[in-house]
Amino acid sequence: MDELKRRILSEAVVGEGDMIRVDMFLNHCMDMDLMERMGGALAKRFRGTRITKVLTAESSGIALACFTAKALGVPVLYAKKFQTGYIDPDVYSAEAHSFSLDKSYTLRVSKRYLNREDSVLLVDDILSNGQTMLSLLELVSKAGGEAAGVGIAIEKAMREGGNVLRRMGIRVEALATVERIEGDRILLA
Amino acid sequence: MDELKRRILSEAVVGEGDMIRVDMFLNHCMDMDLMERMGGALAKRFRGTRITKVLTAESSGIALACFTAKALGVPVLYAKKFQTGYIDPDVYSAEAHSFSLDKSYTLRVSKRYLNREDSVLLVDDILSNGQTMLSLLELVSKAGGEAAGVGIAIEKAMREGGNVLRRMGIRVEALATVERIEGDRILLA
Repeated sequence: MDELKRRILSEAVVGEGDMIRVDMFLNHCMDMDLMERMGGALAKRFRGTRITKVLTAESSGIALACFTAKALGVPVLYAKKFQTGYIDPDVYSAEAHSFSLDKSYTLRVSKRYLNREDSVLLVDDILSNGQTMLSLLELVSKAGGEAAGVGIAIEKAMREGGNVLRRMGIRVEALATVERIEGDRILLA
Repeated sequence: MDELKRRILSEAVVGEGDMIRVDMFLNHCMDMDLMERMGGALAKRFRGTRITKVLTAESSGIALACFTAKALGVPVLYAKKFQTGYIDPDVYSAEAHSFSLDKSYTLRVSKRYLNREDSVLLVDDILSNGQTMLSLLELVSKAGGEAAGVGIAIEKAMREGGNVLRRMGIRVEALATVERIEGDRILLA
């Protein structure tokens, strides 16, 4: 998606390691016009695929999940990472590990909102090692549903997440793909 | 907002204490059509007020904040409660206490995205004791900005948050107000 690529090239900042800071428009301060167009673009890529729900994980994927789901005409379910507010005690849960934060956490969704009839599009802002996506897939699988695919704003191709998912037969659509980082430069596919 | 009131009366479930479970359409599995109309309704109530940004806190207010901000044509900034992904080390921070969870947490926003030019609409899904809102106000104040008001899906009038904010001179708009709970029945204003 050209608009997203332009924003990455003009605004994103390379941090430690291969971290890419996009908090100025994607995952802290969020541009809603861009977000709506990204959601529309992901929905368009999955046109013709049966999708009953969009699933994401707290918190940085929620905005993109909302606009993707709005364009598809389906609800958003977000898996909880944290104990905040009410969640049904009867949940599907999956462990996930964050390499960037070097800690593990448990993703939970209420069994009420995910079942064997569901064909679920998984959405997140950034795909790196794929740990969050693998855990969301586990939740869908435990519910007896199927994964319609994975929709991502930015895939980091130098990390293994995208390839791991594709080798599992999952369709992965990224609106922008970072091939590699050279010093301060971000090289897109 | 009649549509929200109908959904509360037909779907919400009373839990322990005066908890109202609205996870079936508002804050776990989320109805995007309703969310868009709620965002539009909040934006309409604040028409004519200068608003430069919508501010919310992780995670349950993010969806409503997005659709409110989309209708207003401004960005969303969400304060982080948890260490997830990147955040600028240079932040405004405020402590908040959750009575329902009996624990405290720190809200953080990057200083880059909140400043003295900002007139900020604070948005959340539910207003109860108002602890999150008071902390968001503190962040805005630390940045030298001003609060344009508070927009809420559901206010629990039997808790003190709404009155505390109004006595501070803050304009609070709620799309539905729960007056009290009698057994399993939710009584709306």
